[in-house]
Amino acid sequence: MEPISLFKAVLMKKIGIILKPNHPEGKATLDALVDWLHKRDKEVVSIPPQNGLAPSDLDLLIVLGGDGTFLSAARRIEGMAIPLLGVNLGSLGFLTEITRDEIYVTLESIFKSDFLEDSRQTLKSFVERDGNQSPQPTVLNDVTLHKGALSKLIHLEITINNQFVTTIRADGLIVSSPTGSTGYSLSSGGPIVHPSVDAILLTPISPHMLTNRPILVPSTAEVKVVLKTKDTGPVAMFDGQEIFPLLLGDAVHITTAKKRLKIIRSPNRSYYQVLRQKLKWGES
Amino acid sequence: MEPISLFKAVLMKKIGIILKPNHPEGKATLDALVDWLHKRDKEVVSIPPQNGLAPSDLDLLIVLGGDGTFLSAARRIEGMAIPLLGVNLGSLGFLTEITRDEIYVTLESIFKSDFLEDSRQTLKSFVERDGNQSPQPTVLNDVTLHKGALSKLIHLEITINNQFVTTIRADGLIVSSPTGSTGYSLSSGGPIVHPSVDAILLTPISPHMLTNRPILVPSTAEVKVVLKTKDTGPVAMFDGQEIFPLLLGDAVHITTAKKRLKIIRSPNRSYYQVLRQKLKWGES
Amino acid sequence: MEPISLFKAVLMKKIGIILKPNHPEGKATLDALVDWLHKRDKEVVSIPPQNGLAPSDLDLLIVLGGDGTFLSAARRIEGMAIPLLGVNLGSLGFLTEITRDEIYVTLESIFKSDFLEDSRQTLKSFVERDGNQSPQPTVLNDVTLHKGALSKLIHLEITINNQFVTTIRADGLIVSSPTGSTGYSLSSGGPIVHPSVDAILLTPISPHMLTNRPILVPSTAEVKVVLKTKDTGPVAMFDGQEIFPLLLGDAVHITTAKKRLKIIRSPNRSYYQVLRQKLKWGES
Amino acid sequence: MEPISLFKAVLMKKIGIILKPNHPEGKATLDALVDWLHKRDKEVVSIPPQNGLAPSDLDLLIVLGGDGTFLSAARRIEGMAIPLLGVNLGSLGFLTEITRDEIYVTLESIFKSDFLEDSRQTLKSFVERDGNQSPQPTVLNDVTLHKGALSKLIHLEITINNQFVTTIRADGLIVSSPTGSTGYSLSSGGPIVHPSVDAILLTPISPHMLTNRPILVPSTAEVKVVLKTKDTGPVAMFDGQEIFPLLLGDAVHITTAKKRLKIIRSPNRSYYQVLRQKLKWGES
Repeated sequence: MEPISLFKAVLMKKIGIILKPNHPEGKATLDALVDWLHKRDKEVVSIPPQNGLAPSDLDLLIVLGGDGTFLSAARRIEGMAIPLLGVNLGSLGFLTEITRDEIYVTLESIFKSDFLEDSRQTLKSFVERDGNQSPQPTVLNDVTLHKGALSKLIHLEITINNQFVTTIRADGLIVSSPTGSTGYSLSSGGPIVHPSVDAILLTPISPHMLTNRPILVPSTAEVKVVLKTKDTGPVAMFDGQEIFPLLLGDAVHITTAKKRLKIIRSPNRSYYQVLRQKLKWGES
Repeated sequence: MEPISLFKAVLMKKIGIILKPNHPEGKATLDALVDWLHKRDKEVVSIPPQNGLAPSDLDLLIVLGGDGTFLSAARRIEGMAIPLLGVNLGSLGFLTEITRDEIYVTLESIFKSDFLEDSRQTLKSFVERDGNQSPQPTVLNDVTLHKGALSKLIHLEITINNQFVTTIRADGLIVSSPTGSTGYSLSSGGPIVHPSVDAILLTPISPHMLTNRPILVPSTAEVKVVLKTKDTGPVAMFDGQEIFPLLLGDAVHITTAKKRLKIIRSPNRSYYQVLRQKLKWGES
Repeated sequence: MEPISLFKAVLMKKIGIILKPNHPEGKATLDALVDWLHKRDKEVVSIPPQNGLAPSDLDLLIVLGGDGTFLSAARRIEGMAIPLLGVNLGSLGFLTEITRDEIYVTLESIFKSDFLEDSRQTLKSFVERDGNQSPQPTVLNDVTLHKGALSKLIHLEITINNQFVTTIRADGLIVSSPTGSTGYSLSSGGPIVHPSVDAILLTPISPHMLTNRPILVPSTAEVKVVLKTKDTGPVAMFDGQEIFPLLLGDAVHITTAKKRLKIIRSPNRSYYQVLRQKLKWGES
Repeated sequence: MEPISLFKAVLMKKIGIILKPNHPEGKATLDALVDWLHKRDKEVVSIPPQNGLAPSDLDLLIVLGGDGTFLSAARRIEGMAIPLLGVNLGSLGFLTEITRDEIYVTLESIFKSDFLEDSRQTLKSFVERDGNQSPQPTVLNDVTLHKGALSKLIHLEITINNQFVTTIRADGLIVSSPTGSTGYSLSSGGPIVHPSVDAILLTPISPHMLTNRPILVPSTAEVKVVLKTKDTGPVAMFDGQEIFPLLLGDAVHITTAKKRLKIIRSPNRSYYQVLRQKLKWGES
């Protein structure tokens, strides 16, 4: 069931690295890593974490940081087939499963074409206003509509495949991929969804109506959420990082993206192991 | 996305009816329905709700009752391709979507081969004890391990595809199909899962560890739950109706069944409409 | 247990009325009510809902609107002994229990000194910054620290009676009175607290750590919540209406106010009846 | 706010000890403790954990075990003024706050009359059947009505001070003291209630109606819960240990007991510290 595949004999020549900004210790890790890669005749490209696309001819993109840096990195290679390797500079992350200790062993395995790869569903979205479409970044985790600076709750109308679902009054609504289920959605009461389930998860944030529960719809669903609140403040957030101010009547459309994201997995940790460790399961 | 299909020109000659037991008003509905069907030259078979299989040559099985009667009826046609039509004798049900008023109009449409049909995932399970397998009824909603008459919580070990997931201490664990997500699982804090999502949902009941959340795994998962509690009381329940007492070490295996269940849907109600009505959404 | 008392022979001469702004139908109700009161020789004062204190010599303040207008009205009579009567212009409210139909019958009872009165706990708070204290409005429902326009969660440090409680990372924290338990706190997963329980309720909003649960502390508690996030956006909100932008290091102090708020209750509805009606309990 | 008091100069001569049954390592701890106490001229009485009352002239009752043993011990001294000291043989408990390492230091402090004591609310209850009252054990944590061996949910009617509250359909209902809020109630979604809040907490277990939330009522409330289900299986449980089979129409009455339970607290751990440790708060 684990959505893994074995790469065979990929030549990894050109390697990008993204480092979490303002992380002094990470800088040392980066420098050592660059040296190590140069000694193995790899071309190394340092990628700024915040803006613009990474070169499309990278063979691998290494992320040094936490899950936030990883999400940001995923947007740098939007639509490309470059696999991502997440190295966590602190504790273990849901996306950055490789610890600092494991970098070199993992890379050696990768260069021998001996590694596991996940192919993760991502979400594509655009905001529709007055008949115009404003494309938004593709996300790995979630698209969230939120009241933002507004002090009261917002009204949202949810439609799926042109079928009216419901109107909710809440602080917001998280539309997430299975990967995103362990992010913001989990804090707001959502379930855990294994990355290989084909679904889109809708989790209301502090809903006024207590029967508004998280709901999973098929990954083929065309989700449309319309802001029915006339006030300044509400925003759409993409992976909790990019922000787009919303106006009354704006419709946020979310669908599963055609291209999936390639993530290199730790060979030593199953999905459930990461869950147990992150959620501190199993201890009495 | 709605998992519907259009039947073409099926001759519906032999029709079974299951009536909820001890339902005096339902008896009148049944009698009138039988008359109505006889006038249309249908062969009508009355099926006892509790035990044994229905005749396998039925063209349609009508359920008069609530969701409980419907679940029971589904087990009467296990493995057969007979479509089920649920008529609710009381208020609207998640499974019995047709109201009493709509029976005849709906049947007339069906006899003209003009109707919608859902194909629902079901769950197959067996209990493994000392190397022997005891097959259990196929369920539409859920298989639940529960402490039963025991006054304290039970220990359960969860394995998926032979990968250890976690050990939980709880009142129980509900393993449900998407259809079952609006049943017992919802009361225990589980999410709503659209019937066409391919997944199995695991919802802990009153878990001792607060981070034990509902989790969705792919429908291809082979779920195994082992009872680690040495005491009398714990049971496995199948659709909340059939009960099997469990002993220390018993392993309940749950997988998606190969055959899906055919349910005839109301043409007047979308899935989301039933949700709104049952969960009283949309009212301020 | 219902915290009621019987007023004896209070002469009600001067009556204030607050009308929900921008409510055309409410205007007609107001006009009719003023006429009715004038005929009974009452002095009537129209109070603007938004700002400033009401005259301190009012014998009664009538609120025409919803719970929001009621909360706003409560701040207009802060520290005064004026009883509030809430008339709901729409559906039933938790605070505005009198319907439009019941206005005149209720007022006639009140003028005969035949009515029930609740005495509700309120919360006093101030924000401490660089050693200075900025007093904030006394609230009936809640004081909330919230991330506001910030896209990521905030860090909060909670101290009670100078004892460190915990640090949470969340969208925010609601500190509410029992009356406020059926407001924002309920949407965020908090329990219902009967108004006559002496307690302060702390409810985290979308907490990162799943074990951060709502907690009730005695009404004598001195709650202090310090913002540990260095970023623009976070705010303190008072009854969800008044907003105060917070900076890194700001400490919001919350205690039970010395003066309680007098609310005139409907003689026809118990607290539990209002709960049942608002939460739609009791229907199958 | 911590409900503590300082005992002055109590002569502690006669000391009872209750050991968790079937705990081989605990036996060694017990033997060493008895020796240590004998050397200090104390009279030591070993109390069987399961049944009967402890001698009423004990000056202190030491519990060696977990929270379960502590709850059982509390029933052994029902109505007596004997303080309880809980020593946890495993990890930290909510009630057994003293670790094995701390026994002797703690006892030396106690014998110098230098210790903190909590006075905890307990719950008294009886079952009413056909006009007869069957008194039940006083509990420290909770009285629970549960479906027990029954496979379907039960109907319960809740009344407080003779006022109808609501009818719920659920797996059960937990009526708990503030102390019990961190027990079964917490697993079923209840809030944490500081032991010095005067309240009774009602937490539904897997309620059919999603708006049935935990509710706190004043400690003066007379709670009555009537079983409306006609079937074998349902039980009342007292501190999760004593079980009483319920019949249709049985009314379980619960009120705050007149006598409170004295618990000797660890001087090194605040209530919030125990919470943090048990709920693993504060770690990222």
